[in-house]
Amino acid sequence: MKPEKINLAEKFSHFSEHWSPKIVGEVNDSYVKLVKFKGEFMWHHHEAEDEMFLVVKGRLCIRFRDGDLWMGPGEFCIVPRGVEHMPVAEEEVHVVLFEPRSTLNTGNVRSERTREQLERM
Amino acid sequence: MKPEKINLAEKFSHFSEHWSPKIVGEVNDSYVKLVKFKGEFMWHHHEAEDEMFLVVKGRLCIRFRDGDLWMGPGEFCIVPRGVEHMPVAEEEVHVVLFEPRSTLNTGNVRSERTREQLERM
Repeated sequence: MKPEKINLAEKFSHFSEHWSPKIVGEVNDSYVKLVKFKGEFMWHHHEAEDEMFLVVKGRLCIRFRDGDLWMGPGEFCIVPRGVEHMPVAEEEVHVVLFEPRSTLNTGNVRSERTREQLERM
Repeated sequence: MKPEKINLAEKFSHFSEHWSPKIVGEVNDSYVKLVKFKGEFMWHHHEAEDEMFLVVKGRLCIRFRDGDLWMGPGEFCIVPRGVEHMPVAEEEVHVVLFEPRSTLNTGNVRSERTREQLERM
């Protein structure tokens, strides 16, 4: 059966809140999520999950303990499990996340920014 | 430790062959692969793996038994395991694949187009 086609820009146009990932696809044991970042997130890591960040629009900085990584549209990085990181976006950035279903946005940290139940769109 | 940043366009500029996926990243049990398609592939399916196709450049048609799905840059689909499909590209198309490490490009079919050992770049 023919699967659905997902247009990233169209999906991004349907929400405006920051730091609240939306699920747009499931591939094997992973989710494809869309998220908008603006401002600073928090230092955290994921015990058991690698996390892929693909920038679609804007400039994303991910801080690591040994330096900053800047990415623009068409660039991605994979943050291995256990590695502390903190996303920062001076201006709004649109990001595709690829990570296991079990991944919590704030990793090992619980705060008011933790999102337990993610919206599907 | 700060991970590597991958620029998709830069990586695509380093190879020209068609239908031969290159591994550019590992996330959990999956590979991120880049591939250039031109022409028709073959009908096949994957027994146990879902496969994500994200178009970066050009237009991709994936044929399914119940119709064709056309995608352009910034669009993706997820082909669930077991679903027969055949990628077709009238002009060259650049695609990011996201699929389990175990995934063979020709799925259940073995032919001269099967790629057992994928290059990493």
